[in-house]
Amino acid sequence: MNKSIVFHYLSKALLVGSAMFLIPSFVSLYYGETHTMLIFLIIGLVVGIVSVPLAVIKPKNKQMYAREGLVIVALLWVIYPLLGALPFYFSGEIPHFMDAVFESVSGFTTTGATILSNVEALSQGMLFWRSFTHWVGGMGVLVLMIAILPSSNHAMHLMQAECAGPQVGKIVPKGKNSAAYLYIIYAVLTLVTIVLLLLGGMPLFDSVCHAMGTAGTGGFSVKNAGIGYYNSAYIEYVLTIMMILFGVNFSLYYFILIRRFKEVFKNTELKTYFALITIATLLIMANIYPTYESLGKSFRYAFFQVGSIMTSTGFGTADFNVWPAFSQTILIVLMYIGACAGSTGGGFKVSRVIIMFKSGVKSIKKTIHPNSVNIVKSEDKALDINVVHGVQTYLIIYIFLIFISLLIVSLNGADFTTNFTSVTTCINNIGPGLNRVGPTENFGFLNDLSKLTLTVDMLLGRLECFPLLILMSPSVWRKKNF
Amino acid sequence: MNKSIVFHYLSKALLVGSAMFLIPSFVSLYYGETHTMLIFLIIGLVVGIVSVPLAVIKPKNKQMYAREGLVIVALLWVIYPLLGALPFYFSGEIPHFMDAVFESVSGFTTTGATILSNVEALSQGMLFWRSFTHWVGGMGVLVLMIAILPSSNHAMHLMQAECAGPQVGKIVPKGKNSAAYLYIIYAVLTLVTIVLLLLGGMPLFDSVCHAMGTAGTGGFSVKNAGIGYYNSAYIEYVLTIMMILFGVNFSLYYFILIRRFKEVFKNTELKTYFALITIATLLIMANIYPTYESLGKSFRYAFFQVGSIMTSTGFGTADFNVWPAFSQTILIVLMYIGACAGSTGGGFKVSRVIIMFKSGVKSIKKTIHPNSVNIVKSEDKALDINVVHGVQTYLIIYIFLIFISLLIVSLNGADFTTNFTSVTTCINNIGPGLNRVGPTENFGFLNDLSKLTLTVDMLLGRLECFPLLILMSPSVWRKKNF
Repeated sequence: MNKSIVFHYLSKALLVGSAMFLIPSFVSLYYGETHTMLIFLIIGLVVGIVSVPLAVIKPKNKQMYAREGLVIVALLWVIYPLLGALPFYFSGEIPHFMDAVFESVSGFTTTGATILSNVEALSQGMLFWRSFTHWVGGMGVLVLMIAILPSSNHAMHLMQAECAGPQVGKIVPKGKNSAAYLYIIYAVLTLVTIVLLLLGGMPLFDSVCHAMGTAGTGGFSVKNAGIGYYNSAYIEYVLTIMMILFGVNFSLYYFILIRRFKEVFKNTELKTYFALITIATLLIMANIYPTYESLGKSFRYAFFQVGSIMTSTGFGTADFNVWPAFSQTILIVLMYIGACAGSTGGGFKVSRVIIMFKSGVKSIKKTIHPNSVNIVKSEDKALDINVVHGVQTYLIIYIFLIFISLLIVSLNGADFTTNFTSVTTCINNIGPGLNRVGPTENFGFLNDLSKLTLTVDMLLGRLECFPLLILMSPSVWRKKNF
Repeated sequence: MNKSIVFHYLSKALLVGSAMFLIPSFVSLYYGETHTMLIFLIIGLVVGIVSVPLAVIKPKNKQMYAREGLVIVALLWVIYPLLGALPFYFSGEIPHFMDAVFESVSGFTTTGATILSNVEALSQGMLFWRSFTHWVGGMGVLVLMIAILPSSNHAMHLMQAECAGPQVGKIVPKGKNSAAYLYIIYAVLTLVTIVLLLLGGMPLFDSVCHAMGTAGTGGFSVKNAGIGYYNSAYIEYVLTIMMILFGVNFSLYYFILIRRFKEVFKNTELKTYFALITIATLLIMANIYPTYESLGKSFRYAFFQVGSIMTSTGFGTADFNVWPAFSQTILIVLMYIGACAGSTGGGFKVSRVIIMFKSGVKSIKKTIHPNSVNIVKSEDKALDINVVHGVQTYLIIYIFLIFISLLIVSLNGADFTTNFTSVTTCINNIGPGLNRVGPTENFGFLNDLSKLTLTVDMLLGRLECFPLLILMSPSVWRKKNF
């Protein structure tokens, strides 16, 4: 382990982090919230003062491999959410520290699960900060750093560690350029969302916050009733479509920009993603029709909730706690499938599900015809067997995590559905679950051990396990060079 | 596909099946249940008359591969449970045909889930038949056939298709001899159980039925209150220990017989199995202590339920529907882990969990040290990479089945916990679940589509998916020879 390069990058990341606090302080200033403004400014200043001298130290050794990249990403994702918790805590708006950490991790990991029962009691600055963590966490804090800091040769190792989904072919050239491209696309789509929401009559502040929550597929709202507060079909359709667009692999937008439309049209993951959204919406629509007694309303609620859950956003317009079990089960299945790889969305990712499905079919075929050669195919290319095994291993780690978390959370004494869906919704970075963690409920009632477990789950889900698990391995720290 | 050899073995299996009906008819005769006796006799006679001429036809082609073995096993496991449903249906004791099939499949697959709300209303002959299907299904109908029919060169292909668990080294020589050995061990252990139960004051009929249910790790009881009816600590401890013993890989008993004790002591699966039982018992004991306010009672109930669930038997002495969520979650985790490979128990099998765990740890290590060579080890032998991939593929198929079944069962409108645990308990061949399918409840309220789905799950769980999935593949039937 080259500790000096790790230290170097973390110092730089802290510097970027300190600058981040300026933005909510301006918001607080605008709304005349002096106390909140000072909190953001002081935290930003202290972090800045500590990190500037550290960041200028040149690393002794510039060697960097995948391992260093993973460790940097993992440490960063521990440090950033802890920093993010400080404003909540020191402002007194979330007085219990574990709650503040939960809320901050939920923000950065774009989960959107909250411990707050009354969101509207927060100051405007703090509401903005919550949504802003979604926006930063969605694309990744490291990707942001690479995009704005002077050129680096290490960009590839860092980005690979933070990007989600199996690497089915490197479609966008890695490095500084691609980080900048990604952020430009991300920012433009966010702006489009803000404008569309404004056109629907949503106030500017709400539009900005909800657009950031949509872009990061986060799900924090500034209203207790969520998007349902506005009761506007237009706003709901805008958000549904934008959520679905943010759940698409960002490489495909890059392809559209460079006019390689063919790559987009023949993308299996995209087609499967749209097909699953369509099927799920129609099934739920039929299932909830007796509740709403209107085809239009049933479609509107079904489409919104499917888009929100499948992309792991978690915005709500209807309380699916009162929906029939079939619709709830569809939503739970969608939570596990998740969005497309390379998007801001969470879950297991559509491409992994496709690889799993194909490798399952292949195995059955192989048992029938033991001598035939079958290669699991994805994107019409013969897929690397290592990718298939990577997906299978990820699945195994995922299952172990779910069972262990389930056991710990069950110590709270809530019912099985609550425990199961709270783990499901956190590890997949969704937001709401069922029963006591349903769309109109919150995670506040859980004990600290459960909150800590779910916090770790959110981080493991966002980083897809490996970086954090490697951080916990003693051998990474023992050996000087390997 | 060599259809003639498939046909030949199925005819022979039908012949054995027809003889099976004689045993319950004697029981009915003894209890003076003339109607029930006639039902069993007539069904047995009809099946016999049909199968005798078919069984004497020599197959045109004696060639047989793994594929033919899988198809025979799969068809047999469709035919036998259908035959087994006939007495329930024609006697009128289970008047709805789908219910009769569910009960019969639950018996043969050693699940023990029932659609009956009042078991004690059945005739003695029918109660015996329910438990007898457990005993036959536990060791496998084909293993029985091989053990009692004239020598066959095809024994290996047939037994491999029916035996449960990944093949971690062939420890018992396959073939007719091993089938006979297995059945002798099985029968002796069953007899020991009967004697021990009789010594505890349990009536002979009840002892025989419960011993068969224990041997097959089935779980059908002859009392509505299950084993709790006898309210005897002695009986409960006898059954707990016997259930646990029937959950052990039967090859190990063979090793004990031939005095190779070292193979037993160094068996990783066995040690893990006992360790898991101990840990789960202690955790649940501590968790339910406030409910029972007695260490002895808490231990007794915890030990029995852990033994019953982990071995996939499903006998009950306490209603864990009213236990705290932590204990319920432990039981659900145990349902998925299951018993040892090569036992009569169900679930994912301890050895598979070990392989999964080791391959997960290996992958993490490999990411840290990309150049080191790691081989997943099991039983201190370097494990075949094909076994690891086999386990991973099995896991994938398993997960797809669970999600699809969950969606279908949720159409009943029951709560998520009920739906999830009903699928869990059926695919792992356990018996009871939670809420509406809890230990004191039954599966009768489900609609026919759900019953059919769970029936298929039970079969897929018992045969570990592959034989039945292959049966559904059109290419098996299309090609004459491959």
